[in-house]
Amino acid sequence: MNAPTVDRESSGRRVIFGVRPVEELVRANPRSVSVIYVAEGKRSPEAETALAAAKDRGIAVEIRPRALIADLAGGTSHQGIVAVVGAFAYASVETILEHAKTRNEQPLVVLLDGISDPQNLGAVVRSAEVLGAHGVIMADRNSAPVAGGAVKASAGATERVLIARVESLLKTIDKLREAGVMVWAAAGGTGEPPAKLDLTTPVALVIGSEGRGLREAVARRCDGIIAIPMKGAIASLNASAAAAILLYEALRQRSA
Amino acid sequence: MNAPTVDRESSGRRVIFGVRPVEELVRANPRSVSVIYVAEGKRSPEAETALAAAKDRGIAVEIRPRALIADLAGGTSHQGIVAVVGAFAYASVETILEHAKTRNEQPLVVLLDGISDPQNLGAVVRSAEVLGAHGVIMADRNSAPVAGGAVKASAGATERVLIARVESLLKTIDKLREAGVMVWAAAGGTGEPPAKLDLTTPVALVIGSEGRGLREAVARRCDGIIAIPMKGAIASLNASAAAAILLYEALRQRSA
Repeated sequence: MNAPTVDRESSGRRVIFGVRPVEELVRANPRSVSVIYVAEGKRSPEAETALAAAKDRGIAVEIRPRALIADLAGGTSHQGIVAVVGAFAYASVETILEHAKTRNEQPLVVLLDGISDPQNLGAVVRSAEVLGAHGVIMADRNSAPVAGGAVKASAGATERVLIARVESLLKTIDKLREAGVMVWAAAGGTGEPPAKLDLTTPVALVIGSEGRGLREAVARRCDGIIAIPMKGAIASLNASAAAAILLYEALRQRSA
Repeated sequence: MNAPTVDRESSGRRVIFGVRPVEELVRANPRSVSVIYVAEGKRSPEAETALAAAKDRGIAVEIRPRALIADLAGGTSHQGIVAVVGAFAYASVETILEHAKTRNEQPLVVLLDGISDPQNLGAVVRSAEVLGAHGVIMADRNSAPVAGGAVKASAGATERVLIARVESLLKTIDKLREAGVMVWAAAGGTGEPPAKLDLTTPVALVIGSEGRGLREAVARRCDGIIAIPMKGAIASLNASAAAAILLYEALRQRSA
């Protein structure tokens, strides 16, 4: 077996794995791709299509031992294909608000207070893309990077949604409120039902982490608490389900 | 290292891992637990609380090498604690409808057409529990088992929600329709927006698999197609986000 020639996550590079995520990336942002590694052996027609799209765009495609692909993919499902790309280009909070303005829409933003599970992060970003949010802002601390697992779970949405990483979520909340954005903290307990709030105005939705939920200091800094109605015995929805529901409710109100 | 004494997923047993899922299980259904294995070495206060709850209920707690725990947990995060339980007790479709009747509510059921990713399955079951669905019905084929990964992702909801496995989803759709349940197929494309439908009547929501979406034969068998409004370039929400949104919409209408 050849030695890996690219370190995962090091020196500002990252790997994207799986047929669909790689193809999505190749079509959306071909210039970001340094190289695609594909495993030795038989390939699916879907993989062939993705590779053809890459070659069309002048991207280098190299055959490597399956074990190397598995190693780059960090043990998760890779379908024999990984793309190595430059460092993820994070956006700024200002760019996200500007993006809403350009689209002539009231800002709809998701704030994540430390989502450390890459699959959860990817799912939130995917919902944000599909449901028309203008960006996702996440706290630097305890957050999963926008890399392998998150990119795959996002079905390519990480390449299409503006994502900002900020040092202080509290300061970002202040900044958003100063810019006229209503900042709502999503909590499992008591709060305003989303359907009772006006989410057609500029809105940011703050979602807590999987483990400890929303920090109290963060909740206190917001305009108010938004609580999805619940009926069960389990205390809370997972972060990506909560984000999907709140974005849906905003979109429902905005398209009404 | 000792040899593993329990085979994962074999002979009708399964393992539940992680401090909170194990504690949830111990409190909700102590008699289902055969044994709890805890890793050698230091333990968190949370783990100690879970183990104390287990011992209170007469459950055997045994110390094992961390490598065994990791092996039972199949490589995912286990926090040094796993519970081995009997085979998951699947419910029947009739029991799920009966359960709605007992609660004096119109049935609200989720049908899964082959969710093979355990984390997705667990997330759907968790949302079903939190948002008050009466049960989850899944096709036998291509579905993840209600075991390790799904149980953990469900935050214990698998122990609280009725889950049925059926051989034929098509026949189950027929059966539900004969019982007066409106069966809606969730699709990414064109269909009725959920807010425009009456979801306060007996309702079943069919969610497609991660990879191939909803099968056409399944969609055709339903009363109609329900389509969550979308704004992005990515073709669809993931299965658990779609389920969460539709259950939320039903609950919103039912509590209005």
